[in-house]
Amino acid sequence: MDPRVDDEAPKDPAAYHKHKLPFDEKDFEGTPPSQRVQFILGEDNGDEKHESHPLFSEMEELVKEGDELNWKERARWIKFEEDVEEGGNRWSKPHVATLSLHSLFELRSLILSGSVILDMEAITVEQIADLVLDNVINNNCMAVEKRQMVREILLKKHRHLQQKKHHGLPFIRSFNEMRNHSTSKKPHRSQKIAKSASYISINCNASSNELDTMDTKLSLMKKIPPGSEASNILVGEVDFLEKPISAFVRLNKASILGDLTEVPIPTRFLFILLGPSSHTSSYHEIGRAMATLMSDEVFHEVAYRARNRSHLLAAVDEFLDAVTVLPPGEWDPAIRIEPPPAVPSQDTRKRPQPPPQDKQGKGEDEEEVEQKLREEMGLARTGVLFGGLVNDVKRKAPWYWSDFKDAFAMQCIASWIFLYFACLSPIITFGGLLAEATGRNMAAMESLVSGFVCGMGYGFFSGQPLTILGSTGPVLVFETIVYDFCLKTGWDYLSFRFWIGTWIAVILLILVATDASAFVCYITRFTEESFAALIAFIFIYKAIENVLAIGNKYPIGSSSKDYSQSSECLCIFEGNPGLNQTSIADEALCLKLNGTISDSCFTPNAVPDVFLMSVLLFFGTFIISVQLKEFKNALFFPSKVRQFISDFAVIIAILSMTLLDYKVGIATPKLEVPHEFKPTLHTRGWFIPPFQHNPVYSALVALPPALLGTILIFMDQQITSVIINRKEFKLKKGCGYHLDLFVLSILIQICSFMGLPWFVAATVLSINHVNSLKLESECAAPGDKPQFLGVREQRVTHILIFLSIGLSVFLTPTLGHIPMPVLFGVFLYMGVASLKGLQFFDRMLIMFMPAKYQPDYMYLRQVPVKKVHLFTIIQVTCLACLWVIKSFSQTSILFPLMLVVMIGIRKSLDCVFTQRELKILDDVMPDMINRRRVETERVGCWQKFVNCFLGPKPIKEKEYLKCSQMAKEP
Amino acid sequence: MDPRVDDEAPKDPAAYHKHKLPFDEKDFEGTPPSQRVQFILGEDNGDEKHESHPLFSEMEELVKEGDELNWKERARWIKFEEDVEEGGNRWSKPHVATLSLHSLFELRSLILSGSVILDMEAITVEQIADLVLDNVINNNCMAVEKRQMVREILLKKHRHLQQKKHHGLPFIRSFNEMRNHSTSKKPHRSQKIAKSASYISINCNASSNELDTMDTKLSLMKKIPPGSEASNILVGEVDFLEKPISAFVRLNKASILGDLTEVPIPTRFLFILLGPSSHTSSYHEIGRAMATLMSDEVFHEVAYRARNRSHLLAAVDEFLDAVTVLPPGEWDPAIRIEPPPAVPSQDTRKRPQPPPQDKQGKGEDEEEVEQKLREEMGLARTGVLFGGLVNDVKRKAPWYWSDFKDAFAMQCIASWIFLYFACLSPIITFGGLLAEATGRNMAAMESLVSGFVCGMGYGFFSGQPLTILGSTGPVLVFETIVYDFCLKTGWDYLSFRFWIGTWIAVILLILVATDASAFVCYITRFTEESFAALIAFIFIYKAIENVLAIGNKYPIGSSSKDYSQSSECLCIFEGNPGLNQTSIADEALCLKLNGTISDSCFTPNAVPDVFLMSVLLFFGTFIISVQLKEFKNALFFPSKVRQFISDFAVIIAILSMTLLDYKVGIATPKLEVPHEFKPTLHTRGWFIPPFQHNPVYSALVALPPALLGTILIFMDQQITSVIINRKEFKLKKGCGYHLDLFVLSILIQICSFMGLPWFVAATVLSINHVNSLKLESECAAPGDKPQFLGVREQRVTHILIFLSIGLSVFLTPTLGHIPMPVLFGVFLYMGVASLKGLQFFDRMLIMFMPAKYQPDYMYLRQVPVKKVHLFTIIQVTCLACLWVIKSFSQTSILFPLMLVVMIGIRKSLDCVFTQRELKILDDVMPDMINRRRVETERVGCWQKFVNCFLGPKPIKEKEYLKCSQMAKEP
Repeated sequence: MDPRVDDEAPKDPAAYHKHKLPFDEKDFEGTPPSQRVQFILGEDNGDEKHESHPLFSEMEELVKEGDELNWKERARWIKFEEDVEEGGNRWSKPHVATLSLHSLFELRSLILSGSVILDMEAITVEQIADLVLDNVINNNCMAVEKRQMVREILLKKHRHLQQKKHHGLPFIRSFNEMRNHSTSKKPHRSQKIAKSASYISINCNASSNELDTMDTKLSLMKKIPPGSEASNILVGEVDFLEKPISAFVRLNKASILGDLTEVPIPTRFLFILLGPSSHTSSYHEIGRAMATLMSDEVFHEVAYRARNRSHLLAAVDEFLDAVTVLPPGEWDPAIRIEPPPAVPSQDTRKRPQPPPQDKQGKGEDEEEVEQKLREEMGLARTGVLFGGLVNDVKRKAPWYWSDFKDAFAMQCIASWIFLYFACLSPIITFGGLLAEATGRNMAAMESLVSGFVCGMGYGFFSGQPLTILGSTGPVLVFETIVYDFCLKTGWDYLSFRFWIGTWIAVILLILVATDASAFVCYITRFTEESFAALIAFIFIYKAIENVLAIGNKYPIGSSSKDYSQSSECLCIFEGNPGLNQTSIADEALCLKLNGTISDSCFTPNAVPDVFLMSVLLFFGTFIISVQLKEFKNALFFPSKVRQFISDFAVIIAILSMTLLDYKVGIATPKLEVPHEFKPTLHTRGWFIPPFQHNPVYSALVALPPALLGTILIFMDQQITSVIINRKEFKLKKGCGYHLDLFVLSILIQICSFMGLPWFVAATVLSINHVNSLKLESECAAPGDKPQFLGVREQRVTHILIFLSIGLSVFLTPTLGHIPMPVLFGVFLYMGVASLKGLQFFDRMLIMFMPAKYQPDYMYLRQVPVKKVHLFTIIQVTCLACLWVIKSFSQTSILFPLMLVVMIGIRKSLDCVFTQRELKILDDVMPDMINRRRVETERVGCWQKFVNCFLGPKPIKEKEYLKCSQMAKEP
Repeated sequence: MDPRVDDEAPKDPAAYHKHKLPFDEKDFEGTPPSQRVQFILGEDNGDEKHESHPLFSEMEELVKEGDELNWKERARWIKFEEDVEEGGNRWSKPHVATLSLHSLFELRSLILSGSVILDMEAITVEQIADLVLDNVINNNCMAVEKRQMVREILLKKHRHLQQKKHHGLPFIRSFNEMRNHSTSKKPHRSQKIAKSASYISINCNASSNELDTMDTKLSLMKKIPPGSEASNILVGEVDFLEKPISAFVRLNKASILGDLTEVPIPTRFLFILLGPSSHTSSYHEIGRAMATLMSDEVFHEVAYRARNRSHLLAAVDEFLDAVTVLPPGEWDPAIRIEPPPAVPSQDTRKRPQPPPQDKQGKGEDEEEVEQKLREEMGLARTGVLFGGLVNDVKRKAPWYWSDFKDAFAMQCIASWIFLYFACLSPIITFGGLLAEATGRNMAAMESLVSGFVCGMGYGFFSGQPLTILGSTGPVLVFETIVYDFCLKTGWDYLSFRFWIGTWIAVILLILVATDASAFVCYITRFTEESFAALIAFIFIYKAIENVLAIGNKYPIGSSSKDYSQSSECLCIFEGNPGLNQTSIADEALCLKLNGTISDSCFTPNAVPDVFLMSVLLFFGTFIISVQLKEFKNALFFPSKVRQFISDFAVIIAILSMTLLDYKVGIATPKLEVPHEFKPTLHTRGWFIPPFQHNPVYSALVALPPALLGTILIFMDQQITSVIINRKEFKLKKGCGYHLDLFVLSILIQICSFMGLPWFVAATVLSINHVNSLKLESECAAPGDKPQFLGVREQRVTHILIFLSIGLSVFLTPTLGHIPMPVLFGVFLYMGVASLKGLQFFDRMLIMFMPAKYQPDYMYLRQVPVKKVHLFTIIQVTCLACLWVIKSFSQTSILFPLMLVVMIGIRKSLDCVFTQRELKILDDVMPDMINRRRVETERVGCWQKFVNCFLGPKPIKEKEYLKCSQMAKEP
């Protein structure tokens, strides 16, 4: 750090600034640099010339190669720094440019005392060199006699990475060619022309080397935003100069200056620094500092608008004011820092912050806007019959076409196939259970048809087609009770059920008419996550239980050696009355004694290997799914391949495990799909007569069970909807609670009439559907982290899934090869995957971590950890209660009521926790990274957002939108 | 960032330094701050008072609680910053203190213009407050009438984290008590007294709250280095001041100032900053800047020695000169940066760097030192018979006692049990193979005895007891050939083998005498890693092969249903000559027809479930081992529990899977240990007569095979030794190549005489032994990353492992429960684990990564990626050749020769790669983090290090040591 740039240069940082700044604007004196910069940027100079463009910075250093001096590319910046690795002949990873303060101060004094030439009229390197040298010599910074030598240096060839030395190529292209690049005014067009011009030039006189590098260039061009201009930083040491010379040049018009820049984009800025030897490292650092400044949003805007040197200095000072400093003893400056997941907006540096007092003035105005937004959102009660429904339709209609258009992506195919299997299997399983519960009035076939009917109806007409309909446990219990009632009374089950369904449909219709869905704002994260966790745990539990059930059916150890252990396996001595039948100790012995081995030895129960094979398939499917899903974040293969593998993870797992099962050939239980399209029970048809033998008053008797059924369906449906419409998912096309409920009411009417099981929104399936359609941004600048953009919202996957379910009857031969344990493995995966995003689950994990290892969650910073644990424990207790109620079939019917109770419990937490704690624990947290700046504002917003849930007033959508907007912002 | 501290304060960074510095040393004028700081630190003031101590910094802010103002702890520094989380009532994770440059400049101007009182004579807070206020008022920084108000503020109570408000406790402890803390001179002692004094005070008048916090305090005290002093930073806003007042105080003697500091350590420095309201955030930042400065090694040393204000300013400027700057647009200042894995030494900032020209002067001197060091290391040829051996013994002898003492650790028990199972199983398997190869002349029993004999001998007397002896494939082939030869000639195998063994022992002895081990320096990383990778792959391959072999023995699908598929399973009609025997289509039918089911249906082959159970156990063991080993890095449970689980990972896996196997009760193949201590063949005894029936010249015929055997043993042994003695493992007790070989020669003589198989160093077992004994530093300051310290070098595990192997004969009942597939799972784990550290394997993986995802390995920065791939491909080819040669038993005997060829191939790479590339690719890389500063020096060192391998000159140990030293340095 010792070398100094200038003999006269100050020797300590304190002195770097001792020169008085030569401000020409008198008002500026004494104002802090940030205000000066804001003033410069605030000026409307109405000048297209000084409009700012995105900048691509490139730093070159003078290096000696053999006898020749050349300019060699050392680093480049689109947003983050990329260095040329000395030996590796490759670009480093993009990283945060860590500078030394020292070099920044040196740069500042160079701008202060060196040449600054703004709006230079030049279009070739020669012109620039001449004009710069004139200026330097006029400023007495260099002796005249050295002019020619420096000029030669400035006109040396430029070597970029992955480019062999030029041999035949002339250093500077013809004047005409250059013209082409620089004259066109619109930056976007000029760039395109530049590109094509560059192609032409290559066709004319390209060396093979240059063709080699075209690929690299083009891939870089893709990363550079359109309309970009270049800033070229040239630093180097020459032995004939006594003191360094520097020049900051802004060209009047951006021009392509021969091979100056790596890619054919026009140069607007040049920074030249040449000086005597033994200062290399220092020059390198100053060059990096300059390039980093140029890649800074604020500085480069000032650089475009600066009218004199003092403007540039103000921008440097403003930059210094905004930097983050790492102390030397706590950081190794040689570490290349990974780009952060998100960088805060730099707008606060550009514009003066509005004073905070005008909040009250806007109060009334806000109220109005709020009201409007609330209506738009559709969760406010309109006061008009079907007002919410009409609004939902109005809001969703404009998206309808895009709901199909947006589906053109590989991801949708993966999502379709994955969820097809995920949905098919529970529908068939549920069908089997239903068959038992309803005396085969409804079974697998009816479930498939119901899936098809509901899926089509919901897919085409619902407000939120990301929700997947399915059959749920409480509905099954409800059907059981109704069937038992019918058995007792001797009524026809399906006809009575038709009336219940009709009443449910009517009540739901009334709920839609009165905008009852607005009450979903009482479903907070507390209820939502308890419910989701419960369903996820049930999925996991059921998956494991089902596999163990295989073990009961096909016990292990039932080998031919172990006959003796099975008490049912007997040696029967028919011909020998003296001997009694006895359990077989040794089959050979039994046969020798002329006994017969009893049939029970050869029951299908004695099939060995099946259970262990099932376990292998089960875990195999689960592990492959998890690992391949994670493969997205691996380092191998190009990102597209990884994305594909990750999207198709579950399908690959199903296919590979099915293939393994097929190859091994063990008779594991397979998926059994009905193979004929007809009602399971031959006594019933596809349409149910409303009474058959039932008395007419049965229609009225159906009302009370219908009320219970409605609560059940309403709660199941709406909680899932709330989960799917969560702001974390960043949905853009809005929700449609009223429309969903309306469509559901019609579907229930149809199902009741056709004698099909009722389907409602299935939590785990829906969450997995959304997860399988997540979108991430492609990186723009190298080093930018991909951001979660939202979900591919469309109707096509939903429609395709249930269309395929309808067609499954015809796919029986293929589907029959899929072993059930594989599908159970998929369930396990889905259960685990849907636990992953739950804050509730994170909080459970935290209880097992020592304080110092706990992740830096926002709520841990703001709520004492004991309170967090208390909240978790209360939630776990609720979950356990729900589990118990759900588990026993006697109480299971109370389950939906318990969900209502949950909302009450959540309300009573007000006594235990402060409002502040609740709003932090019971609401969406942004990411783990601390954002102090927005924090205060966000809390204010949360306050209102949470108030909605606590108070009787429905949600204020404006706030909601604002919050979710904030969550979207990086 | 807008608020200013001072009305007169400059408004832009440029102006922060416009005041001329008031230097009293004239020489200082114009010198850069780094030189000034070096000068201050270089002065020998012979003054114990100004000796620097480690510092604990604590920042408190003035907060209003109810009606009262209090000082509340906000952050603390041991090395890294820890903040009090506002709402969470907890400490944040330690992180790098990211400062704003702005606040640093503000701090600088406060030191420039505020009070600076050095060596204040005060021992109570009151005295300090009075003296500070006198100074402030004298400097005209505050009106006299505000004195009393400010004094009251300064004497407010101090609230630390996890401490309720004090009620009964007097704010300042009695004068006498204080005396106790501060008078004792030696810092270490004073702290101890302070601690006990604090205990006493608590016994007298402690509130229950205080007792609560004792635990926290004590755990913090452990982290603070002994002899530490405190620096207390107090910042706050008060409404009655018009402009801020600040004071930097250094006490003449460190004293415990009541409850000022969180922990009872004496305060030496105080920084007080009070000012008018609406500046809070700024004050907070300035306070953080001050605390960070105090925790900086260089600044705090200057702070101890400073004689006036200008010294402090110089130190601030020097600090600024050394900071790293992150540009605002590329970093979010709110991100808390994790402490880096290592921080570069700050010594360069403290002392002027010696000019580099005196290198040549030292040249001759270095030569001498080099020679000396080389001798110490033991790898140089001494020129004296057994010189190397004698040196080895001399070098190892001083460590002998510590080789036993150092073993007292839980880790050793884990290592012992793990490696016991890891060694036992191959010994027994190998015994089985040997039995086949040598007509049962040697079998499992002999292998166990050999393990015991060799293990004891090697454990007690070898130079490197971390190496584990085992049996290897080439040795087996060698034995086969010898046995076949004896069969042909009719000679007695064991007697002939006795002579071969004797010759090998003699040749090895000659090699020891001539210091032939010095040639190991030709074994470079290229050979070493190819060999290690080969062995690891063989382990993995064998593990899988063995499991599949179970599948062949107990095929799946051999259920009772599938009788028909087995062609061997027939229905025999003895009583009915009209019917021929036929394969069984249906067993019931067979029986009905009075046929008998053939015995072949009931062969043990037909045991089902065994293979699938084996597969489950195999993968179960592997997955549990891997997962639990990784558990060390998980976030759950305290680190000791995690360390324990990680250490015992493999043992837990073996136990749990054995238990599962036992519970399920399937007849999986189990480990079969001989249960009687006697030679397998009853015709032989434990001692082999040298000739028996063989002709006397057979002793001479044994010489040629002995030569081959020697190469085999020498290569196997030495390559493994080189791998174990690799510098990455940071072994401290030195190596003993000559001693190892000497012990081996004696062991071979013993084994030959007793007719036991020969054991040599086993690569994978040895690597796993070392890995299981790795030591990591416990963190000192919070946030410090654990550093890999080395390996627990001792003899006890080795001895215990082979002692238990000897005793295994008596453990047969227990060991018989362990299923073989579980042990195969352990082999798979060991193979995979030993691949992990290989750079060769990393390079193979890189070939599948797109360039931008490749990790930031040092060699990728310095060698073009194509060259790296070429190097890898050549190595893979060599590996493939070795594999082929090893696989076919005809060529397998050539394997050791091929290793010699490998060294030749490596030599011929000189034509393809430059020396620079080779020295980077073929040598130890430090870590992935770039260390530009040491890089140049290191390359110079590598150059010489590599030269040793390339040229005919043996390794220069001085260089070697220097390199490995460097690798050790953080």
